[in-house]
Amino acid sequence: MTPLDLHLVRDTLLAALREDIGSGDVTSRATVPDDARATGRYTTKQQLVVAGLPVVGELLRLADPGLEFRVSAQEGASVEQGSVLALVQGRARSILAAERVTLNLLQRMCGIATETREYVDRVRGTAARVVDTRKTAPGLRILDKYAVRCGGGMNHRVGLFDGVLIKNNHLEFHASIRQAIEAASRAVGHLLKIEVEVRDPEQVREAIDAGADLILLDNFTSQQTQRAVAICGGRVPLESSGGITLDNIREFAQAGVNYISVGALTHSVRAADIHLRVTPD
Amino acid sequence: MTPLDLHLVRDTLLAALREDIGSGDVTSRATVPDDARATGRYTTKQQLVVAGLPVVGELLRLADPGLEFRVSAQEGASVEQGSVLALVQGRARSILAAERVTLNLLQRMCGIATETREYVDRVRGTAARVVDTRKTAPGLRILDKYAVRCGGGMNHRVGLFDGVLIKNNHLEFHASIRQAIEAASRAVGHLLKIEVEVRDPEQVREAIDAGADLILLDNFTSQQTQRAVAICGGRVPLESSGGITLDNIREFAQAGVNYISVGALTHSVRAADIHLRVTPD
Amino acid sequence: MTPLDLHLVRDTLLAALREDIGSGDVTSRATVPDDARATGRYTTKQQLVVAGLPVVGELLRLADPGLEFRVSAQEGASVEQGSVLALVQGRARSILAAERVTLNLLQRMCGIATETREYVDRVRGTAARVVDTRKTAPGLRILDKYAVRCGGGMNHRVGLFDGVLIKNNHLEFHASIRQAIEAASRAVGHLLKIEVEVRDPEQVREAIDAGADLILLDNFTSQQTQRAVAICGGRVPLESSGGITLDNIREFAQAGVNYISVGALTHSVRAADIHLRVTPD
Amino acid sequence: MTPLDLHLVRDTLLAALREDIGSGDVTSRATVPDDARATGRYTTKQQLVVAGLPVVGELLRLADPGLEFRVSAQEGASVEQGSVLALVQGRARSILAAERVTLNLLQRMCGIATETREYVDRVRGTAARVVDTRKTAPGLRILDKYAVRCGGGMNHRVGLFDGVLIKNNHLEFHASIRQAIEAASRAVGHLLKIEVEVRDPEQVREAIDAGADLILLDNFTSQQTQRAVAICGGRVPLESSGGITLDNIREFAQAGVNYISVGALTHSVRAADIHLRVTPD
Amino acid sequence: MTPLDLHLVRDTLLAALREDIGSGDVTSRATVPDDARATGRYTTKQQLVVAGLPVVGELLRLADPGLEFRVSAQEGASVEQGSVLALVQGRARSILAAERVTLNLLQRMCGIATETREYVDRVRGTAARVVDTRKTAPGLRILDKYAVRCGGGMNHRVGLFDGVLIKNNHLEFHASIRQAIEAASRAVGHLLKIEVEVRDPEQVREAIDAGADLILLDNFTSQQTQRAVAICGGRVPLESSGGITLDNIREFAQAGVNYISVGALTHSVRAADIHLRVTPD
Amino acid sequence: MTPLDLHLVRDTLLAALREDIGSGDVTSRATVPDDARATGRYTTKQQLVVAGLPVVGELLRLADPGLEFRVSAQEGASVEQGSVLALVQGRARSILAAERVTLNLLQRMCGIATETREYVDRVRGTAARVVDTRKTAPGLRILDKYAVRCGGGMNHRVGLFDGVLIKNNHLEFHASIRQAIEAASRAVGHLLKIEVEVRDPEQVREAIDAGADLILLDNFTSQQTQRAVAICGGRVPLESSGGITLDNIREFAQAGVNYISVGALTHSVRAADIHLRVTPD
Repeated sequence: MTPLDLHLVRDTLLAALREDIGSGDVTSRATVPDDARATGRYTTKQQLVVAGLPVVGELLRLADPGLEFRVSAQEGASVEQGSVLALVQGRARSILAAERVTLNLLQRMCGIATETREYVDRVRGTAARVVDTRKTAPGLRILDKYAVRCGGGMNHRVGLFDGVLIKNNHLEFHASIRQAIEAASRAVGHLLKIEVEVRDPEQVREAIDAGADLILLDNFTSQQTQRAVAICGGRVPLESSGGITLDNIREFAQAGVNYISVGALTHSVRAADIHLRVTPD
Repeated sequence: MTPLDLHLVRDTLLAALREDIGSGDVTSRATVPDDARATGRYTTKQQLVVAGLPVVGELLRLADPGLEFRVSAQEGASVEQGSVLALVQGRARSILAAERVTLNLLQRMCGIATETREYVDRVRGTAARVVDTRKTAPGLRILDKYAVRCGGGMNHRVGLFDGVLIKNNHLEFHASIRQAIEAASRAVGHLLKIEVEVRDPEQVREAIDAGADLILLDNFTSQQTQRAVAICGGRVPLESSGGITLDNIREFAQAGVNYISVGALTHSVRAADIHLRVTPD
Repeated sequence: MTPLDLHLVRDTLLAALREDIGSGDVTSRATVPDDARATGRYTTKQQLVVAGLPVVGELLRLADPGLEFRVSAQEGASVEQGSVLALVQGRARSILAAERVTLNLLQRMCGIATETREYVDRVRGTAARVVDTRKTAPGLRILDKYAVRCGGGMNHRVGLFDGVLIKNNHLEFHASIRQAIEAASRAVGHLLKIEVEVRDPEQVREAIDAGADLILLDNFTSQQTQRAVAICGGRVPLESSGGITLDNIREFAQAGVNYISVGALTHSVRAADIHLRVTPD
Repeated sequence: MTPLDLHLVRDTLLAALREDIGSGDVTSRATVPDDARATGRYTTKQQLVVAGLPVVGELLRLADPGLEFRVSAQEGASVEQGSVLALVQGRARSILAAERVTLNLLQRMCGIATETREYVDRVRGTAARVVDTRKTAPGLRILDKYAVRCGGGMNHRVGLFDGVLIKNNHLEFHASIRQAIEAASRAVGHLLKIEVEVRDPEQVREAIDAGADLILLDNFTSQQTQRAVAICGGRVPLESSGGITLDNIREFAQAGVNYISVGALTHSVRAADIHLRVTPD
Repeated sequence: MTPLDLHLVRDTLLAALREDIGSGDVTSRATVPDDARATGRYTTKQQLVVAGLPVVGELLRLADPGLEFRVSAQEGASVEQGSVLALVQGRARSILAAERVTLNLLQRMCGIATETREYVDRVRGTAARVVDTRKTAPGLRILDKYAVRCGGGMNHRVGLFDGVLIKNNHLEFHASIRQAIEAASRAVGHLLKIEVEVRDPEQVREAIDAGADLILLDNFTSQQTQRAVAICGGRVPLESSGGITLDNIREFAQAGVNYISVGALTHSVRAADIHLRVTPD
Repeated sequence: MTPLDLHLVRDTLLAALREDIGSGDVTSRATVPDDARATGRYTTKQQLVVAGLPVVGELLRLADPGLEFRVSAQEGASVEQGSVLALVQGRARSILAAERVTLNLLQRMCGIATETREYVDRVRGTAARVVDTRKTAPGLRILDKYAVRCGGGMNHRVGLFDGVLIKNNHLEFHASIRQAIEAASRAVGHLLKIEVEVRDPEQVREAIDAGADLILLDNFTSQQTQRAVAICGGRVPLESSGGITLDNIREFAQAGVNYISVGALTHSVRAADIHLRVTPD
């Protein structure tokens, strides 16, 4: 699994700390001695898939380089309720000032990874890969997509800049799918593939003929999907998208598509239940 | 309802656009003529409470000051499935480049407002107010909290800087709740109230005697809550927190607390279903 | 005393160095060898109260992480003329490039602390606390307010975001003080107190009845202040503000108010006289 | 007089607004209707020299582009107590949110200009020019130096980058003034003059012989200054510095120096007394 | 030709202005009246291909929104020596302050476009496209690549993030080209093609068999290139790279490759000769 | 030679890395194991003058503080083809991600230094110094000018802020050179010299009489230059500018000017040929 590049998110993490701490943590200043030291344990209150511990470590380092942070679970591992994921030691005020931001990110990321893992488990044994979308929390895309990887999912393009996906809103400007694909082929750089969204199985043929590299089956039923797979005949990869749930994902996978993208992985995240218990040293 | 101050989120919105657009929207460049103009309609695909249209307007303005944006629904209003919330007109490439970011924020904010409204409806007729927490998506706190207001909820403190809330992790550094409250009273500025978290009804008395301005009942049952209300006798406001759901919130409200804080309003958001349909002019 | 959180001012300090150094220190480059090492001593040329040595240390670290900095006086201590406050050793060019910025901040902060201490000394033995205002040098509020603490003063709210203070310019929008306070009570978060400015002693009663948490006596004479204290009868804290000088502050303190705010502490600062004497190693 | 280039200070002004407003002006939100409009008048409560009105205008524009701002006094003009310097009209909350920051800067800048004017008036009729130093409030140098110009003073170099001034701390690295000047002559760019600080009149000769373009007389008495002027014989300009007050500046001017630099103009500023009276429209 | 998205370079342009203007344009302030107005004409002193006029317009707008800018040549057009490319009118000091930065960028961009056009002209009539590289001036990539498009060239990937190009430094970590390509196929997102660098014609076969989408012929002679084209048989596009000059590019094009990348287009730019003649209005 | 102050360029270097790396180096992630370690050697493929190794070191440190970097050539040294300039060791992915940016800057800077050295060699034995201009790549001025110093050249002013140079575009606003110089003398700070551009030898006299500190001979022939030198008679330094090439620079130097500025040193850079060869450890 490609690890998280902390360089890419440092500004995001700093902004998150500033957003919460603002002009200072008035409660800790008022109730915790300046020289008090403490130990904090990030503990799970549910079964979950781990994602985000390096982010917690980086946040703590940004908040106070003097804090020590030790991880006791692996990214991508499934852990039981009651597990200690990591331990932080050092100046108590620093730990308390960073507590909420670290939890907010860790809970979100573990939530994404845990949900992704459920989808991945449902398609196990098929050739289909679970893929994310650009429906992430603004500002957190790199983190959201990393959490999907921790859950066993695969990342679609990062943004508008690293992949061509011709959707219905683009097709509106062309007389046919063919025309749109041909326009794209002429214009895009030679290192980018062209994926195109189709609305019914018959368009699969047109898209392939026009030179599409991949085809996205938008809101197909599983029956339509089977038909599309048959028409495609393996000439290009197919991706299912729209209306996918834990209940029906296996049907789509078994229909033979290569990718199944699920917006809910990142647009509707259920925070995992994790606590930070702080005790004075 | 306090409106959103767009000044406070402009950097966040710019960063969100940059995150998605990066070095450019290769698909629109390749498939939509540079001079094409279009109209986009933000349309609901479910019943929802509106929140975030000014944010959409600002994002579109940042993406292209030439775009025209007209709102057709009010912040905080409950609208039916199939409603057009707003309309954007102008350069097609600009609309398409901003599409996903505007939807990501609008769907999140309407999701928060819609869920908050459900909680608010459940306590209607009682004196209790539904309150948010600091469990927001990092970087989006101002927006998340505004969406809570749109739903009819009330905001707790914005961050660590504008309110004192002594939680268990702070109490660990003191021999008693009394001692912690007294330390805080000596140290904090004279414009901030002091709220303290208690674990059982008997601590309510101690907290009031020590001078707490508010008391947070942490993970109380509704029976414990009734007992706390009785002990308190209206001397200070009480806030329920922890384990509150749509199913049980009314019990807590009826027990007589003043505030009920619900972390799930912002930490586990279900994106509202909204589409942007773009048609060439 | 709450220590300074250097995290909150790092950007300010970096900007200060850039403002002065710009495209480079042409004099040091031209007259001091690149490898020359030196020792600098920050020495007082007047009696003063110390404030800002951690800021000097951080500036030097930002200018050149290789510099060694040793402090020989305590924040908040009163020191005699001729004292060495701190010592810096390392690359001569780095010390010289940072010299002016370190002195500018140290002289300002010691100036504020020294003046604050004079006010604090005048009210010693009374219950009154000397409090600062938001009349700080733009960009330097955190530092100015920290210097006030070093002098023994207490901080009022940090900005417009962490406290409610209804002033005459707000009262203009209401028919009465009562109405304004009631509007504020409905609108502000439950962790913020409400302070209101009154113009004559009789308004004290109205403000208390309306639910004000604190009352600011704006430009009262000491006689009017005594009357206000009598009317208040200890029900809420009182704050004197406006026209306070070293000559009259004790009269106000003896009248029985709880807080006396002095804008001049930070809006009209007399720089303390401190030199940096640099000698080659 | 060179006008202020607002481009150079826009980031500073934005940071000043953010420092004060933070997550929002809770008092105005709570007590002033969102749609209330108002008029504010910046009115002097003392005689003063005007400086900073364009800065106020820019701050108001940054806070709310919808505000209208009309200036009724000229930069550099001396105005009586009770004068209206400027008027702002528009959304009441915007005016109130920006009030303190505009006043903090305007009071500081008018304070500097007013004090500078006093010094300038004392040397009227002589050839000496009153000059500022780099002893400005960190972050506000461009504004502080502009205010000096408004008062009739002249600016010394802006920072370490646009002028060579060899001070005692540099001379420590050389066997003689001559050696230091010669080193500088070889090293600095051909568009920068070289000024050197001397400690006694006899060094004036050495400095001129070595090629100094200007000479700074550091902490000279007026008698020493006369001697230095005689030795110099007009070959290079001379600058007095150190220990200059309103009481003695004329002596130095009459001794015949060309420039007299006064650190107190900017390091020990007395804020001018200016109020903003806001009334609902 | 895809137009330049000015949003993507605004920060770069602002930084460029700040780099040159710093604390102010002392010459214009000293010699040009504050209210003087002028007209400037960007005039070519050589035949060239136009690129960068929108950048000039944006720089002028950033320097002073009051300036009027009229373009009289089209991006990508070839113009004669002595042509007026554009005209700017307004405050003289603003024009002069922005002069050098506008010229520096315009001369560089026209230089790139002009050189690119020469390469493009040499391959006219063949199927080969002239392509740029990532060998751009740091900070100016978007501008450099846009200038290449103006010259008729095609852009390779923008950065490391939007295309896979396996070079020799990557191949070092694999036993064979096949292994490297297979690793990449498993790991990269499904919207990115995989290009691989080969060292001799025989590796072309291996690369195709392993699933490469494109092949880069690194430092091939034109004979080797012909052989590679033969082996490839049109199965994937081929790109020549390394050692390409105006003198030999046609040989490579005629050998039948699809793309020819030329680092010198952007790493060794000869500034086009363009002047700005300013006259008072 | 004045060394490079890395503080001044850190933001530039970070921006350069971000520009290239964007959302991540997809190729290295896909083909190089996360824990692979490697050694890279920066090797010359031509004779060149070294400039920029500290910049490479800083870029590598910013990309990954764990990388080790050892320099084996001195800034300003002339080295043969095939020399190893520096060696980097550490995480392979980090080295590969930073490769192109380090090369782009190193090649540019060595290119500038090498070209500058050629000009310097041509004037050896004369009194003339080779000087750069403000015709640098926007954003890279500090680096470009440092490279000129490595080549043995001398820097002209850094920007518009640290030197007065009255050019033809300024003279347009004055009736005569005399008038322009006198205006400047009155207005500019006392630490800046005044250089003025003249168009024919006779203007030299006028400029000197008016008080110019230096004179720039704009586009003079070598004959005109000789005449100007004669007229000047050593009273002020003279600078040749415009139309200087390697072929004619010695004529100008021999004519007796003090400075010869060459825009091509930085506006038309030929990248030096340097490779980074990476091998797995």
